[in-house]
Amino acid sequence: MSVNLSAPVAAELLAVNGVRIGVTEAGVRKANRKDLTVFLLDEGAAVAGVFTQNRFCAAPVQVSREHLAAGKGIRAMVVNTGNANAGTGADGLARARATCAALARELNLAPEQILPFSTGVIMEELPVDRIVAGLPAAIAAARADNWAAAAEGIMTTDTLPKAFSRSVEVAGKTVCITGISKGAGMIRPNMATMLGFLATDAAIAPALLQPLVKELADGSFNRVTIDGDTSTNDSFVLIATGKAGNAPIDSLTSAEGQALKAALLEVAQKLAQAIVRDGEGATKFITVKVEGGRTEEECRLVAYAIAHSPLVKTAFYASDPNLGRILAAVGYAGIDDLDQTRIDLYLDDVHVAVNGGRNPSYQEEDGQRVMKQQEITVRVLLGRGNAAQTVWTCDFSHEYVTINADYRS
Amino acid sequence: MSVNLSAPVAAELLAVNGVRIGVTEAGVRKANRKDLTVFLLDEGAAVAGVFTQNRFCAAPVQVSREHLAAGKGIRAMVVNTGNANAGTGADGLARARATCAALARELNLAPEQILPFSTGVIMEELPVDRIVAGLPAAIAAARADNWAAAAEGIMTTDTLPKAFSRSVEVAGKTVCITGISKGAGMIRPNMATMLGFLATDAAIAPALLQPLVKELADGSFNRVTIDGDTSTNDSFVLIATGKAGNAPIDSLTSAEGQALKAALLEVAQKLAQAIVRDGEGATKFITVKVEGGRTEEECRLVAYAIAHSPLVKTAFYASDPNLGRILAAVGYAGIDDLDQTRIDLYLDDVHVAVNGGRNPSYQEEDGQRVMKQQEITVRVLLGRGNAAQTVWTCDFSHEYVTINADYRS
Repeated sequence: MSVNLSAPVAAELLAVNGVRIGVTEAGVRKANRKDLTVFLLDEGAAVAGVFTQNRFCAAPVQVSREHLAAGKGIRAMVVNTGNANAGTGADGLARARATCAALARELNLAPEQILPFSTGVIMEELPVDRIVAGLPAAIAAARADNWAAAAEGIMTTDTLPKAFSRSVEVAGKTVCITGISKGAGMIRPNMATMLGFLATDAAIAPALLQPLVKELADGSFNRVTIDGDTSTNDSFVLIATGKAGNAPIDSLTSAEGQALKAALLEVAQKLAQAIVRDGEGATKFITVKVEGGRTEEECRLVAYAIAHSPLVKTAFYASDPNLGRILAAVGYAGIDDLDQTRIDLYLDDVHVAVNGGRNPSYQEEDGQRVMKQQEITVRVLLGRGNAAQTVWTCDFSHEYVTINADYRS
Repeated sequence: MSVNLSAPVAAELLAVNGVRIGVTEAGVRKANRKDLTVFLLDEGAAVAGVFTQNRFCAAPVQVSREHLAAGKGIRAMVVNTGNANAGTGADGLARARATCAALARELNLAPEQILPFSTGVIMEELPVDRIVAGLPAAIAAARADNWAAAAEGIMTTDTLPKAFSRSVEVAGKTVCITGISKGAGMIRPNMATMLGFLATDAAIAPALLQPLVKELADGSFNRVTIDGDTSTNDSFVLIATGKAGNAPIDSLTSAEGQALKAALLEVAQKLAQAIVRDGEGATKFITVKVEGGRTEEECRLVAYAIAHSPLVKTAFYASDPNLGRILAAVGYAGIDDLDQTRIDLYLDDVHVAVNGGRNPSYQEEDGQRVMKQQEITVRVLLGRGNAAQTVWTCDFSHEYVTINADYRS
């Protein structure tokens, strides 16, 4: 039930020198599934992350923020699926810390050098004993060419693992970039996503890593939505191991910095779009472009109003060009002084509405033709400025209700 | 598929002296259905309204605002279903004006004494010829005891007509109150609802009518949501014919003013709740109470975040006490400095979460018992102040998707 998405081919994913990954079955929630993943990072790797803005952020998010702030150098990450360790209060924090302490003992590190991640059911106790018991097997399984297994090991309601790689020349050196992500529901990231991990062997000045991860998130994970629910556990982490041998990048605006950033953004966008393509119940992948706004912020408001509207999303599911629903969403998006007589609407190349009303030359069959496609671009012209923004979303189907009425049960 | 709602009994609806209503079949969109309603108001009736805040507001909303502002005294209203006359640009405005002009000619009034209302499909031409052709029959059918027919004549995807009456003593006189409403989808009113008409024969100082209708809307229609989509056509109109013989109410805070307001609010809340009970695909009626906030505004943010979350709504549909989804919605509602360790959550009498974590004494079967009910109260304590707000919503079912994927087709 995914839209133009296929599982990654393990052999096509590039190993990133300085990163080894091990995956095992710890029985966190269900037996016989890979549910525990560890990332082992060589000394000297730079790591930065952005996390959910949900005020009910999960215990592992709180601990990850603390450990990044401690500045002792991140050397490992531990990810479990099946349990989000969110809505678990002080006890949940203790369990996240216990997980880090156990992994630190196994690796002879300080607990502050570990980042923990959990996704799955909210408000249930993290089975920390089973996770700790699984750590030795995960560590023993660690290999550099294990990204495909990791992409699988972090899945929850995902139907497919999500991983992408590419290489890019930076100042005469080839650097590798590989990333994985997971998420299919409770997806409306705010500064991050459910889980995204992006690694490169490029050398980058550590001070640049945090602004870079923020910029990458803003251009990728912060532009997707499935159901408008911002998760308690969103985390997006960027790792730069520095093993590629390039002269360290010390500016994001230099030619080298721009080349690396563009390549990282390409992979980050593919990872973010893969989450939408695998959205719960998704049958269509929809790009919403809003142009002609006064500010990017107001373009984003309009794009998300369209992308979150259950009425718009069900119309896409039905391939029904009931396009007034899009105009209604534009109208309630929150631009107080919006002049409806300046709005134009396109569905791919079809000019549907002009000056706020139906385009006289618009034919229902043209709208129908586009609506039947698996990939559709909605383009709204606000006619009030030069700002533009794009978000990606999916439709809203019976399968979404089925999945979310049955998950857990 | 409605929740504890039944059709009104025509004989139980009170006629409001000074208001006559006629309903006919004009063939606006479908044959053989009552789709055109006229309200005829005796001279001297005071009328006030609140309308959608959607910037893509429909042509009839724009014309109604103009005609109320003209101050010539409203003497008639005309309501069609089947076509919303929204997203129709300048041509739509001309058609709304033509409808008013035709009714004005029939009744020997000025066009500014008419309020037009349309609901139904967006972005299609209003068939003004068929509406005008139907006006004489609607006028000929006008009677004071015709509220039940009007409630039926304004329906779109509603499964049941919605009408309530009550009488109240005001300064020794019995005054009557009757109201009707419609709406089942695209429901997240902002200052008003899809369509609500509330009439009383009480005499009220005209200057009080606008603040009164605003206050009534804020306490009723502005507290409900079905799918979060604010309609282009929301309108709520209050009519006071002054025929009851009471000394005109000149203060809303006097004993008489308070008594009348309370009775009006009771009917307005029933009308608003009836829309939720008849929400598209609704199987449950959910009251969301948020208490302990610093301001009413932040309580409302939290209540609507819960009421709009597709994940929360599908969990209610499934009777699955997946209550972490409610905490997640609280967390992303937009209170930046929310302290999750102060949050408590109740499901009816069941204390689910305490200090942001699962209540140690919470048993899943207790949550399950409440979730299986048709009427459920979610109560969130924010622990930061004394403000409180309540909103009403429904669950999100397969039937919602079916209705909205099929509507129009």
